[in-house]
Amino acid sequence: MVYAAVMGHGVVGSGVVEVLDKNAASIAKKAGEDIALKYILDIRDFPDSPHTDLFTKRFEDILEDPDVRIVAEAMGGVEPAYSYVRQCLEAGKSVVTSNKELVAAKGAELLACAKKGDVNFLFEASVGGGIPIIRPLHQCLAANEIGEIAGILNGTTNFILTKMIKEGMAFDSALTLAQENGYAEADPTADVEGHDACRKICILASLAFGSHVYPKNVPTTGITALTAEDVRYASSAGCVIKLIGRASRGENGKVFAMVSPAFVPSASQLAGIDDVFNGILVRGDATGDVVFYGRGAGKLPTASAVIGDIVDCVKAKGTIASLHWSHSEGNNVADYRGCPAVMYIRLRGKDAAVLAAEAFGRIKPLERDGRPTGEFAFLTPEMREGDIEENLDGLRQRGIETLAAIRRLDY
Amino acid sequence: MVYAAVMGHGVVGSGVVEVLDKNAASIAKKAGEDIALKYILDIRDFPDSPHTDLFTKRFEDILEDPDVRIVAEAMGGVEPAYSYVRQCLEAGKSVVTSNKELVAAKGAELLACAKKGDVNFLFEASVGGGIPIIRPLHQCLAANEIGEIAGILNGTTNFILTKMIKEGMAFDSALTLAQENGYAEADPTADVEGHDACRKICILASLAFGSHVYPKNVPTTGITALTAEDVRYASSAGCVIKLIGRASRGENGKVFAMVSPAFVPSASQLAGIDDVFNGILVRGDATGDVVFYGRGAGKLPTASAVIGDIVDCVKAKGTIASLHWSHSEGNNVADYRGCPAVMYIRLRGKDAAVLAAEAFGRIKPLERDGRPTGEFAFLTPEMREGDIEENLDGLRQRGIETLAAIRRLDY
Repeated sequence: MVYAAVMGHGVVGSGVVEVLDKNAASIAKKAGEDIALKYILDIRDFPDSPHTDLFTKRFEDILEDPDVRIVAEAMGGVEPAYSYVRQCLEAGKSVVTSNKELVAAKGAELLACAKKGDVNFLFEASVGGGIPIIRPLHQCLAANEIGEIAGILNGTTNFILTKMIKEGMAFDSALTLAQENGYAEADPTADVEGHDACRKICILASLAFGSHVYPKNVPTTGITALTAEDVRYASSAGCVIKLIGRASRGENGKVFAMVSPAFVPSASQLAGIDDVFNGILVRGDATGDVVFYGRGAGKLPTASAVIGDIVDCVKAKGTIASLHWSHSEGNNVADYRGCPAVMYIRLRGKDAAVLAAEAFGRIKPLERDGRPTGEFAFLTPEMREGDIEENLDGLRQRGIETLAAIRRLDY
Repeated sequence: MVYAAVMGHGVVGSGVVEVLDKNAASIAKKAGEDIALKYILDIRDFPDSPHTDLFTKRFEDILEDPDVRIVAEAMGGVEPAYSYVRQCLEAGKSVVTSNKELVAAKGAELLACAKKGDVNFLFEASVGGGIPIIRPLHQCLAANEIGEIAGILNGTTNFILTKMIKEGMAFDSALTLAQENGYAEADPTADVEGHDACRKICILASLAFGSHVYPKNVPTTGITALTAEDVRYASSAGCVIKLIGRASRGENGKVFAMVSPAFVPSASQLAGIDDVFNGILVRGDATGDVVFYGRGAGKLPTASAVIGDIVDCVKAKGTIASLHWSHSEGNNVADYRGCPAVMYIRLRGKDAAVLAAEAFGRIKPLERDGRPTGEFAFLTPEMREGDIEENLDGLRQRGIETLAAIRRLDY
């Protein structure tokens, strides 16, 4: 019998409790031992829960109980989650978490802490909800040098984009619909501005490339500026617009990482990932492209990932050493302006087409129904992003306004 | 330092040797120890290999060398692979394999053997090539009751179907093209008749549902009877035709398993998996649908899966107990005739439309360009497969020939 505690009884935490109840027998079989819940930490009261006797408001009950070997953290946010998790690890308890904000901010420290205490800090649920990605990335792909990761990492924005693409909705209407469906929160900032996707690509990049990539260093653009016009131009270029988080190995030990909307060819596996689904593409030197697809959020999918980690903690003897990355000093993210890119550009102004061709050389003009005079959209040739920015600055000085600039990716 | 041996220096075996060389440093980091190759077993000579000193034609060299802790089997076929693998396990060596025929035929026995000897028998590479599927299925999805698995498990047939669907090629021409590209063997029987896909769904079903599902009990239909006409009817029904291996939990502890071509809705994740790619959908009660996608075959993808298993053997202390299923007595596969299905039926004969409606009730007629008089295609309502077969028998007695009968699946 192994005793566990759950911290936080919100969507994910209550899901963990529910699945532990429901699938107790098969979970015990897979873990090799029964798993018993001893505490549920929450500042709120849950008089209707079948587990009222397990609730506590005192973190110390968990910390000081030597019976508790595994703690599932599902509180969200960096504090107090960070100090609770840290204390648990230091007290010799393994911790599993669904908290991407915590892992993206403090992953290196908490992994080091776990290693020191010969326990585990696992976070499969922090990226991709119920999609197995952290473990396959670090384990099944052990034989690969991972070159690149790219994914649709946020279900809310993917739902909004799907509505914009398939039903021609405007961003605001699609966001409202997402809120009505419970896919977007009242304050949707973290989703629509790309912060959530950024945390997730930071976790994946840190794991794949070995040094902590911090969200503050990753250029992040959300989807709030996207318009139905951009969606139509994408379509005319054989593409759809997706919010893509991506990371690859840069020069001099740096990591390239970015979150931004992108034109993705319609035939690509990522293009077909619609609604609230997530999909993550991992490019290995031996496997080629592998894609993982499923529900990136939601109570039960995320809970099942948390429980998968709990089972692994039960089975593991000591620290799983390979799940690790180092703290990084300074900014280890490569300057995106040095990287080659192809961009979709939409301009407005007199002679935009002529001036764009002058500035960019071999461009590929795009069309849409109802294009007003003075609007001109095109794909640039491949060139350094810094040069693209300079060209757009130059055009601005000649009275040409940039209405949109979106990367075209080739997955 | 851990010593390993590779048995078989064909496509996969030579790939294992190559990737072990190329990514030695990162593999050692992930395994926590250097992995050194001590023997390569093959009856052929490879004078140009950089490892000529490692080759042996005597299996006993590997079996009797106590240094060798891990053996990678990539010989293919059941014998002599089975007796070699068995002897290695009994001698206390862990074995990893890419040999689906072996695992599908002897998995339960070899897993029991590994357990007895406290070593591991791993076979990630046997299904889906470089796609991580065996490990996520048994590990990351530990919290799920798996209800159903469905996949495009054979790259050769998927390549052929893609050519038939996208370019209107006939089966024979598409097969020839596959052979010219090296995707199909001179004797393509195992691929095009569905045997390869059958072995793979047997492995997945055995692991997911716990008792060995033997290929001989699984109804298997290949793609040789498919015509361009069926492809066009599928298109008119908003579907594409894919060769699907699937398994689900049946009644009375039985497993439903089948390999057959199927109409798959174009918007489904499986429909978008084209060319030689594989995709496997796992339906869990908590995660919902998760799809794994990538190259299902090929030297380096498969080799990387083998090496992932080698790394796991190095890291594992004793048997990984959860990777296990039991031997099954008799036939544990449920009779498909009792299962509900919707089928696409193509008939030829006088008054086919009228007689079909009489026999099946609420049918959905389908159209294609150039449909000859006397041909009639439709989707049945959902009914027991046995009843569909009986209806078709009845029609046959009234002079109506069944040109095609293909299940429509809902993924």
